[in-house]
Amino acid sequence: MSTSIKAYVFDVYGTLFDVYSVKKVCEDLYPGKGEEISVLWRQKQLEYSFLRQLMGHYTTFYQVTKDSLRFSLEKLHLPFSPKQEQQLIEEYRRLSLHPEVKNVVEQLSDKQRAVFSNGSRDMLEPLIHQSAISGTFDAIISVDDIKQYKPTPASYFHAMKALKLERDEVLFISSNGWDISGARAFGFKTAWINRSSQPNEHLDLQPHATYNDLTGILEWL
Amino acid sequence: MSTSIKAYVFDVYGTLFDVYSVKKVCEDLYPGKGEEISVLWRQKQLEYSFLRQLMGHYTTFYQVTKDSLRFSLEKLHLPFSPKQEQQLIEEYRRLSLHPEVKNVVEQLSDKQRAVFSNGSRDMLEPLIHQSAISGTFDAIISVDDIKQYKPTPASYFHAMKALKLERDEVLFISSNGWDISGARAFGFKTAWINRSSQPNEHLDLQPHATYNDLTGILEWL
Repeated sequence: MSTSIKAYVFDVYGTLFDVYSVKKVCEDLYPGKGEEISVLWRQKQLEYSFLRQLMGHYTTFYQVTKDSLRFSLEKLHLPFSPKQEQQLIEEYRRLSLHPEVKNVVEQLSDKQRAVFSNGSRDMLEPLIHQSAISGTFDAIISVDDIKQYKPTPASYFHAMKALKLERDEVLFISSNGWDISGARAFGFKTAWINRSSQPNEHLDLQPHATYNDLTGILEWL
Repeated sequence: MSTSIKAYVFDVYGTLFDVYSVKKVCEDLYPGKGEEISVLWRQKQLEYSFLRQLMGHYTTFYQVTKDSLRFSLEKLHLPFSPKQEQQLIEEYRRLSLHPEVKNVVEQLSDKQRAVFSNGSRDMLEPLIHQSAISGTFDAIISVDDIKQYKPTPASYFHAMKALKLERDEVLFISSNGWDISGARAFGFKTAWINRSSQPNEHLDLQPHATYNDLTGILEWL
């Protein structure tokens, strides 16, 4: 697709790993509520990262994940012990890989490979290291190193600098439409992994390419 | 409650006016879908204002309201003509007042009264002027004048300067938990109107007071 690309940079949550794989443990703890908890938890997790960035009250994504879980359980009137809370949080360190990811990421060996995530290292590194794609990446880049959540321009700038590249040398790959918009606004090449046939976000910034799953990225080889 | 307060500053959408009053027209156009459209529309409207602020791609709240409606209808696979779209948007200029609002706002005449909203003037002013509280306010303050959405510190700073007050002289009143957190982070006194018994937001910033509806504000007289 483009010879100017020098790195494949992957978002992590939703893109490589299935954030809704927490559903199973949620369901075990709260029968009949697994789906509802996992959807609300993810929605509040994103909202809290956005809000803290806007307000200038940064805290780590680990804390944000904990805070959003707590809100979600309270909203659904589900009681929880410290032990249950910890058990749910731990699931974020062993999310399932989407099925095609390992095969695709391994084939993309012609260029640098990196992950770039809102996750803090205390949750990001354990997640990747316990997975089947551990050791595949040249760099693990976290916004926590500069305390600037995506989709701020400063966050993408940090990833670009960490890779010692120019904007248009990065192919940024994410399943999150808002992340694609932010990366495109900054100047990355962008590929949106639209796993659940969502409509395009109306933010005036369309991805350079859209695929149903990560397999589509192979055409950038 | 506090003698240092010199102004009552009200958020608009959700606080004075019921954003879900669009449900009726949504239901007329898409029978059985009114509730779902109105909830998703509001959620995306907030999300788009947050995201545009984070990305540095500001556009007016009028445009954000239009974009979020379009996304919502597309997501729900509901076809729409330009005329229908316009009809739905226009509803945002004639939202219903919450029932207690007029009576309470009229009583709060011992101090300055202002509204401070993410809404751009092209939707905010028609809404207030067609309502039963038209003429009650000393100031209508819009973030659009500085292109900084709440909950950024710059947005609250703008409201404070427009009123020629200090931070702790403002009692800021909102039904939006994120707005309360942002205002409290900035330094306003805050009262959260928690109409639907939501749990507190887990953002480390609690309101100074919480009420079920606007009537509670009368104790600040």
